[in-house]
Amino acid sequence: MIGKKRWAIAEGYIPHDDETKPREFVSHETACILNTTDKDAHITLMIYFADRDPAGPYNVTVPAKRTLHLRFNDLKDPEKIPHGTDYSSVFESDVPVVIQHTRLDGRKAENALLTTIAYSEG
Amino acid sequence: MIGKKRWAIAEGYIPHDDETKPREFVSHETACILNTTDKDAHITLMIYFADRDPAGPYNVTVPAKRTLHLRFNDLKDPEKIPHGTDYSSVFESDVPVVIQHTRLDGRKAENALLTTIAYSEG
Amino acid sequence: MIGKKRWAIAEGYIPHDDETKPREFVSHETACILNTTDKDAHITLMIYFADRDPAGPYNVTVPAKRTLHLRFNDLKDPEKIPHGTDYSSVFESDVPVVIQHTRLDGRKAENALLTTIAYSEG
Amino acid sequence: MIGKKRWAIAEGYIPHDDETKPREFVSHETACILNTTDKDAHITLMIYFADRDPAGPYNVTVPAKRTLHLRFNDLKDPEKIPHGTDYSSVFESDVPVVIQHTRLDGRKAENALLTTIAYSEG
Repeated sequence: MIGKKRWAIAEGYIPHDDETKPREFVSHETACILNTTDKDAHITLMIYFADRDPAGPYNVTVPAKRTLHLRFNDLKDPEKIPHGTDYSSVFESDVPVVIQHTRLDGRKAENALLTTIAYSEG
Repeated sequence: MIGKKRWAIAEGYIPHDDETKPREFVSHETACILNTTDKDAHITLMIYFADRDPAGPYNVTVPAKRTLHLRFNDLKDPEKIPHGTDYSSVFESDVPVVIQHTRLDGRKAENALLTTIAYSEG
Repeated sequence: MIGKKRWAIAEGYIPHDDETKPREFVSHETACILNTTDKDAHITLMIYFADRDPAGPYNVTVPAKRTLHLRFNDLKDPEKIPHGTDYSSVFESDVPVVIQHTRLDGRKAENALLTTIAYSEG
Repeated sequence: MIGKKRWAIAEGYIPHDDETKPREFVSHETACILNTTDKDAHITLMIYFADRDPAGPYNVTVPAKRTLHLRFNDLKDPEKIPHGTDYSSVFESDVPVVIQHTRLDGRKAENALLTTIAYSEG
């Protein structure tokens, strides 16, 4: 078992892109969530913006001994995350998890990639 | 509430670029600052250089429950940060925040991206 | 001596690529493992997936005072890691080590790179 | 004052490149070292390899209240770091510093960039 229960990703931005491209090349932002425990991880996710109240909570479950590469593009309930907009995200889990942030920017002919371990506490 | 009060980004460099491009594609360096508390974050920012005394303090406010994607390119008071110059930055906040560093390098036809969580204490 | 004994990389993905390119330009994912101690590091590696039980343990040795840039593409025993599949990895070492995650994505004409220090405990 | 005295970068690799290009576009690997204290930082740097004994110590000084973007390409004493070779680096400073790792890969027409905060202790 490895990880923490509270995580934050301060950088968030889903570029506007052509959504008819193959899914792997469409610009997307991902939170990779690893749950090494033998219990399902029940995670609540809040999204913070520059000029409006936070969105959420979003409910995400990562099964025991599984990883979930969560695309922020896919979040819909309670609301979609707008593209071309700055945001940040905070995760609270009931079991320890490890979270890493990745973006693929596919707006130009070539891809650009970034990643970082998220900030963790508790 | 999540975060720390003191943060440092050792890498800093704003490439010379064509400033007439769309703002999202002009090379820029960003500190994404997340404030999940219910108080405004009052932050003082110092910029360190290789061969001169530090610049600053710059005063930045991130409202309660908001995120700010601060472009170093936009800092003007007390002075602009020169382009094509190595620098580092240190942030001190009166409430806990989370800071992540990102650069988009748009000098060539294709974009290059980098990001990392900043170094934190306290 | 510097490091920790338990490390996790939540992001993992080996892109499908043309394996006949020069090895340095074939898309690959790497765990760079530094052992500064004067004893060999015996490391067990588990791979977690989205929809099946974990694979492993894989056994990796990093000699005393050496670094190993381990390509996940090269792991074969007990099984290869499938390409185009999300995964995460967890490392347990008998001496302190430092682990950093890097990917070169060479699917397009230009390369994309990402890196981050891994998450550590103990 | 912010930082730690011991830092490690597990990933290290200077690509072979055309050294006649403008210096900013030649592939290079950098350790950005920030010293916010009012004393000079005296740093010893050791380089670890996959298949030979470590190189060093290299001696680096970062003046008080200054930052140094140290290019591994420029290290010469006691020996140059070979290009196209995997390595790792360990820094020990007599005052707290903050270290971040960056690489620009300029081998192809477009640039690729990576960065991460280094691993720290003490």
